[in-house]
Amino acid sequence: MVPRYARPEMTAIWDAESRFRIWFEIEAHATDALAQLGVVPTSAAKALWDWWATNPVIDVAAIDAIEAVTKHDVIAFLTWVADNVGEDARFMHQGMTSSDVLDTCLAVQLARASDLLIADLDRLLDVIKRRAFEHRLTPTIGRSHGIHAEPVTFGLKMAEAYAEFSRCRARLVAARAEVATCAISGAVGTFANIDPRVEAHVAAKLGLTVEPVSTQVIPRDRHAMFFATLGVIASSIERLAVEVRHLQRTEVLEAEEYFSPGQKGSSAMPHKRNPVLTENLTGLARMVRAYALPAMENVALWHERDISHSSVERYIAPDATITLDFALARLTGVIDKLLVYPERMMRNLDKMGGLVHSQRVLLALTQAGVSREDSYVYVQRNAMKVWESDGALSLLDLLKADPDVTAALPAATIEEKFNLDYHFKHVDTIFARVFGTV
Amino acid sequence: MVPRYARPEMTAIWDAESRFRIWFEIEAHATDALAQLGVVPTSAAKALWDWWATNPVIDVAAIDAIEAVTKHDVIAFLTWVADNVGEDARFMHQGMTSSDVLDTCLAVQLARASDLLIADLDRLLDVIKRRAFEHRLTPTIGRSHGIHAEPVTFGLKMAEAYAEFSRCRARLVAARAEVATCAISGAVGTFANIDPRVEAHVAAKLGLTVEPVSTQVIPRDRHAMFFATLGVIASSIERLAVEVRHLQRTEVLEAEEYFSPGQKGSSAMPHKRNPVLTENLTGLARMVRAYALPAMENVALWHERDISHSSVERYIAPDATITLDFALARLTGVIDKLLVYPERMMRNLDKMGGLVHSQRVLLALTQAGVSREDSYVYVQRNAMKVWESDGALSLLDLLKADPDVTAALPAATIEEKFNLDYHFKHVDTIFARVFGTV
Amino acid sequence: MVPRYARPEMTAIWDAESRFRIWFEIEAHATDALAQLGVVPTSAAKALWDWWATNPVIDVAAIDAIEAVTKHDVIAFLTWVADNVGEDARFMHQGMTSSDVLDTCLAVQLARASDLLIADLDRLLDVIKRRAFEHRLTPTIGRSHGIHAEPVTFGLKMAEAYAEFSRCRARLVAARAEVATCAISGAVGTFANIDPRVEAHVAAKLGLTVEPVSTQVIPRDRHAMFFATLGVIASSIERLAVEVRHLQRTEVLEAEEYFSPGQKGSSAMPHKRNPVLTENLTGLARMVRAYALPAMENVALWHERDISHSSVERYIAPDATITLDFALARLTGVIDKLLVYPERMMRNLDKMGGLVHSQRVLLALTQAGVSREDSYVYVQRNAMKVWESDGALSLLDLLKADPDVTAALPAATIEEKFNLDYHFKHVDTIFARVFGTV
Amino acid sequence: MVPRYARPEMTAIWDAESRFRIWFEIEAHATDALAQLGVVPTSAAKALWDWWATNPVIDVAAIDAIEAVTKHDVIAFLTWVADNVGEDARFMHQGMTSSDVLDTCLAVQLARASDLLIADLDRLLDVIKRRAFEHRLTPTIGRSHGIHAEPVTFGLKMAEAYAEFSRCRARLVAARAEVATCAISGAVGTFANIDPRVEAHVAAKLGLTVEPVSTQVIPRDRHAMFFATLGVIASSIERLAVEVRHLQRTEVLEAEEYFSPGQKGSSAMPHKRNPVLTENLTGLARMVRAYALPAMENVALWHERDISHSSVERYIAPDATITLDFALARLTGVIDKLLVYPERMMRNLDKMGGLVHSQRVLLALTQAGVSREDSYVYVQRNAMKVWESDGALSLLDLLKADPDVTAALPAATIEEKFNLDYHFKHVDTIFARVFGTV
Repeated sequence: MVPRYARPEMTAIWDAESRFRIWFEIEAHATDALAQLGVVPTSAAKALWDWWATNPVIDVAAIDAIEAVTKHDVIAFLTWVADNVGEDARFMHQGMTSSDVLDTCLAVQLARASDLLIADLDRLLDVIKRRAFEHRLTPTIGRSHGIHAEPVTFGLKMAEAYAEFSRCRARLVAARAEVATCAISGAVGTFANIDPRVEAHVAAKLGLTVEPVSTQVIPRDRHAMFFATLGVIASSIERLAVEVRHLQRTEVLEAEEYFSPGQKGSSAMPHKRNPVLTENLTGLARMVRAYALPAMENVALWHERDISHSSVERYIAPDATITLDFALARLTGVIDKLLVYPERMMRNLDKMGGLVHSQRVLLALTQAGVSREDSYVYVQRNAMKVWESDGALSLLDLLKADPDVTAALPAATIEEKFNLDYHFKHVDTIFARVFGTV
Repeated sequence: MVPRYARPEMTAIWDAESRFRIWFEIEAHATDALAQLGVVPTSAAKALWDWWATNPVIDVAAIDAIEAVTKHDVIAFLTWVADNVGEDARFMHQGMTSSDVLDTCLAVQLARASDLLIADLDRLLDVIKRRAFEHRLTPTIGRSHGIHAEPVTFGLKMAEAYAEFSRCRARLVAARAEVATCAISGAVGTFANIDPRVEAHVAAKLGLTVEPVSTQVIPRDRHAMFFATLGVIASSIERLAVEVRHLQRTEVLEAEEYFSPGQKGSSAMPHKRNPVLTENLTGLARMVRAYALPAMENVALWHERDISHSSVERYIAPDATITLDFALARLTGVIDKLLVYPERMMRNLDKMGGLVHSQRVLLALTQAGVSREDSYVYVQRNAMKVWESDGALSLLDLLKADPDVTAALPAATIEEKFNLDYHFKHVDTIFARVFGTV
Repeated sequence: MVPRYARPEMTAIWDAESRFRIWFEIEAHATDALAQLGVVPTSAAKALWDWWATNPVIDVAAIDAIEAVTKHDVIAFLTWVADNVGEDARFMHQGMTSSDVLDTCLAVQLARASDLLIADLDRLLDVIKRRAFEHRLTPTIGRSHGIHAEPVTFGLKMAEAYAEFSRCRARLVAARAEVATCAISGAVGTFANIDPRVEAHVAAKLGLTVEPVSTQVIPRDRHAMFFATLGVIASSIERLAVEVRHLQRTEVLEAEEYFSPGQKGSSAMPHKRNPVLTENLTGLARMVRAYALPAMENVALWHERDISHSSVERYIAPDATITLDFALARLTGVIDKLLVYPERMMRNLDKMGGLVHSQRVLLALTQAGVSREDSYVYVQRNAMKVWESDGALSLLDLLKADPDVTAALPAATIEEKFNLDYHFKHVDTIFARVFGTV
Repeated sequence: MVPRYARPEMTAIWDAESRFRIWFEIEAHATDALAQLGVVPTSAAKALWDWWATNPVIDVAAIDAIEAVTKHDVIAFLTWVADNVGEDARFMHQGMTSSDVLDTCLAVQLARASDLLIADLDRLLDVIKRRAFEHRLTPTIGRSHGIHAEPVTFGLKMAEAYAEFSRCRARLVAARAEVATCAISGAVGTFANIDPRVEAHVAAKLGLTVEPVSTQVIPRDRHAMFFATLGVIASSIERLAVEVRHLQRTEVLEAEEYFSPGQKGSSAMPHKRNPVLTENLTGLARMVRAYALPAMENVALWHERDISHSSVERYIAPDATITLDFALARLTGVIDKLLVYPERMMRNLDKMGGLVHSQRVLLALTQAGVSREDSYVYVQRNAMKVWESDGALSLLDLLKADPDVTAALPAATIEEKFNLDYHFKHVDTIFARVFGTV
């Protein structure tokens, strides 16, 4: 975890105290169920909850000190709780194995982390939607291969991002369901020493589903799918970040990250306004993506379990969720405050001497009966002149002076092909598809 | 594509002829829609389908030869079709861009590949289910950390695999839906030169959904999610393969890959029967997993598109699907014909002198009023003696001779704790969860 | 292997015939050594080489047919050779294990592939060097964060690429040495049934070094290092490719990939000249990079070996080397024929109203006794005006009109700070460092 | 960084105070050089070093507070130093850019980290060497595919590990040289505002080499190579860890991780001794390996630099080096204290009824004039009987009763083939190759 890329609410999910609190709840709920089943005295569960009701401080250092001796985290925790609760605590954890606690705890943490991330996505979607409608009909050049193609609107770019992050949200909801399962099934998952109803009770209390069949652990294909999904979401963040970085290039400058008054762009070059937030997001995306692979390697645990997944998860569970939370929030801020320059967009759009309209002329020629091959030749020979003039020549002028073209199309028809609005007639169609409304 | 890890049905999806056939269908369906809209003559669509009805040979070499000149695959294809169909073909592709064809074709190919993979998973699930019920109550030792833990059944191992591959199937169905979209939206996705109804028509004809907003291309987060999902499935294959490899180890030998009569295990060591199929699957899983990353890197295309994703997909779309198809089929064969040795399982289970029953004694002591810490000490000191004797001593005998233990538990009670069936009382519960039936 | 990204010389290394030819040489050289040691008759070795001297056709199909029965590739090959050579062939392979042949063969193939790649790099370096000297003093704007910073020369960009690919070459030479080892050590590497002098003989004949200690196989950390190195080289290819893609953007257009007469940029937009080669290289880099990971996962084979690495290497050994070979050649062509536009570079450089010279003024102010903080304020307030004017205002004019600035610096001094040559005074220093000559 | 997988000496390299100390040294050495060149007053350098000689506390919080306003870390640091040193500090950083400080600092940190890692490897090599000689002739079964093959010695296993980690050491030395370069070259690497002799001076003082050509930054292919190398080393750690895990399996139990008195293996199963350290190392290896990929993605920065690499390096530079340092130390401890059970090794070796000697008999038959094919048949038919008897039958007995075998070989000769020492006659050869001594 890199503090500068972390936000407190997400970080708190992963601190030692939160973990111990969840452990306690799992143990106490399980003891409740065991008491209901008559396996342990009702007084045992009551003792636990009574102590909990005193809102005890979780003494992380004390638990760590016990672990330093036992080299076993759950036993250390149980020992500490027993020291505090007293005699009745000995009924706690009956028939359970450490992984019942650890894996169910991880499920709770990942579910909570998912909830924060879903909320992050909702905020991002709101902001993107606002900017989309704000610039629904702001013309800008569409670029393929970095080369001017045909006009789009800035709102369409935002609509694309909205659709993409909507998919990300749906994937995250599915990923949350993958990992939000509870396993209280004992040493090798057979329920030999614990009734399955204990698992059902704890699951219900914690808002989890029951793991249909666990070994000692919850199977790690679930977690692999979860972290792979985060990697895909991070890649979508990168896409929008790269878009902003391109738009802010000196020669393009159609949009800029907000530049706060006190900010210095460069210790050497005072004029610089750098897209550092989106460059940063590009790097963060690389990290979240990287975590998908060890998560996949974690799947093939040996037999009923080995513990190789554990160290991996100590890194990636906090790092992937904390980083993605930060990145989503940062991206939300970037889009929210993005400085958009419609005039520069129009100036760039116009700079190629009308080349962006070439395809419409091509189609008109074809429809006027010229063969596709000839049409292509007529348009391209004029387009190439404009291109080589660096936009100084006008495609419209050249076409109107080309006898092969004018033989097929009257001047007015050619001119009509250079009308920008023509390109935006289906913006509403697309907005309706994406936002459900226009 | 490595021929030895490829099966013909999946490979065929990716050959040049299949691709060109799909391209034709996209173009011809689009021409139908254009004709219905009055944009092109009805005769144009008819000419295309009439030629198609002659079941023409796709002359891949001829198309490649044209591409060698134009350096553009779709133009090469259109030229070749025009050469065959004649004059009417000039109305084809009107208002479309190459990516409309390429991306929609890829969607069809990935959907077909998904269908084969889903069928593969169904066959695998069938086989696993059969073996699960066959060995529902075949006792075998459960192992955590590679160390004997407590008894499970071989059927439970299969049930775990069944549950895992059922999840994989659900993920694959979701991944298929991600990529099965159709985009016919023109140069930058604005429908400037093509009516959205053309896209709707083609989508319906090809069994795809409409891409709500495309740029020039279908957004690559969809494909990233698809290949990430294949990577997770591959990881589950690896898990089951590693299980078999472990079971076949000389010292364990609880199961073996089927060994055909003509097969030689080693050029030097004639006695060897090696788990080469599952080792092979382990390697194949590494490959399918590796393809997830470039797929994620493909998401952040520049602006409305760059073509960097294309070369990546020429590798991973065939390689990931062909390899996974082969791996699923191979795994199905391995599980189908797996030689299972229940006697060896029982012998291994017994070899630790009853140590696997230690937890039950621990619990009994606790329930008899001994503190958890004391119980642990009593059991562990005897367990350690058995462990150090390499199974020569019997835990049951030692416990019955330990006065601290016998002070709390009568001999009959101790003996009862060494009963194997005790561990299997919830096998039916788990089977009901996993298979919906027992 | 994707044929369109493959060149014949590299592909030939990996075809079945090449492999079998290398296998034969290994076996025949080993038989020579065995004969010298008196283990087998001299006639055995002679019979092998006599047959080889007839330049026999390698009947790949026949060998494959035998393998279909034996399910063992080396035994199939030996059987086929024995069928051809006759009785004497039975002394072949004495004391060896299949992996002795397979791994040593792979070493030969990887060494040959490395030689081609090194030659590729040499050609690339030659081309980059030529372009570097051609444009040693061609001014162009240096950009950090995509934003204009200070002037560089296009030759410096090439010098940076030269230095980077020189490092890649050195890494590749080291990687070649990693994998070019020979192991003929028998079933578990103990030389129990074969004299170490056989290994030394075969190694010397094939230009390999002796593997100090093999198990059954050559340890896979060597191959992991090899493929990781290819991944790093691919990343450097991506860097230069991305540079070209940026330079070719419509708004920048300082350089372009060569555009051949017959080429069509877009089926829809005839004016387009797209940087498709460098976009393609970006994708290819993703693939070569991806292969590093399964190579690393291959290291941890079980005990003296398992065969999980084999399938991985059937993919990545050809795919990584063939793709990298193709990519290096393509990049060489791109740089060789790159259209460079010095006038456009100068125009872009000038477009920010002289902002790129701001740091020099900042330094002059500091040296004239103004505090660093005040200097920064004076320069930045004028720089910001120029920035906001989109280059319409001139930084030089504004500074000459700023009383705080002129109080510290005379006009002539300020003007001198806008001299472009100032920035290039150390170009020769850098060229001397990189090329060893100016 | 996960505290439980971190050691203080490595962690200290990456804390804020260390970073600021290195920054100061870079700035102060640069000021020295600038003073020598007459660019700044000698008093400026003196003032910096005089203040430094007071051993000032680095007030990290104060610097962070300034950065919160300026949003620029180097400017914040320079401001803080200026506040402490006074007027003369204004000459500091003259002509430099932030990256000169940041990248050179990272070089120092990575060089220091490399030194610790090299020392780690030296300690590991020492321990492995000791165990190798201790068990030079301890027989144990060699296994391919997890199946018994032929005898090796435990010392040979250690020798293999020694050779592998020796290669890792050489790679790490090379990787250190890759990243230990100094760049003080100004805003875009042209030395426009700073003399190259400043860079040479700082490099010499800090033990770095001069970067031949930097842009604004040190090129990231160097760092990619560095982190890829760490990934390969981690994979070798995994290999040895997996070996230990296999040896500790209940059924194998030829070696065990040291089990300390207070340690509890399982909260539920008191008898368990789990290879948790090596399982942990397996997981840690996955993490270090994963960091190679974002490092490679960092190479293709835009133009003269973008800052996307920075966030990646904030994660992976500490995490990869700290984790690898911890893992190497942990592995050293595991091997140092590994409990090795030669008796169990011998028992396992013998358990297959002598099958491991089958190849020697095969060779003897061939040398006695039996065809290779017939020899194979004679041996295999007996070997299969032994195999199917689960080691109850003896291969030696069966062979002596097989008339085809005895027709070719006298009984004494057959018996001689079952002599274990035969396999170890070249152990000294291998030790001499690996250790340079026997």
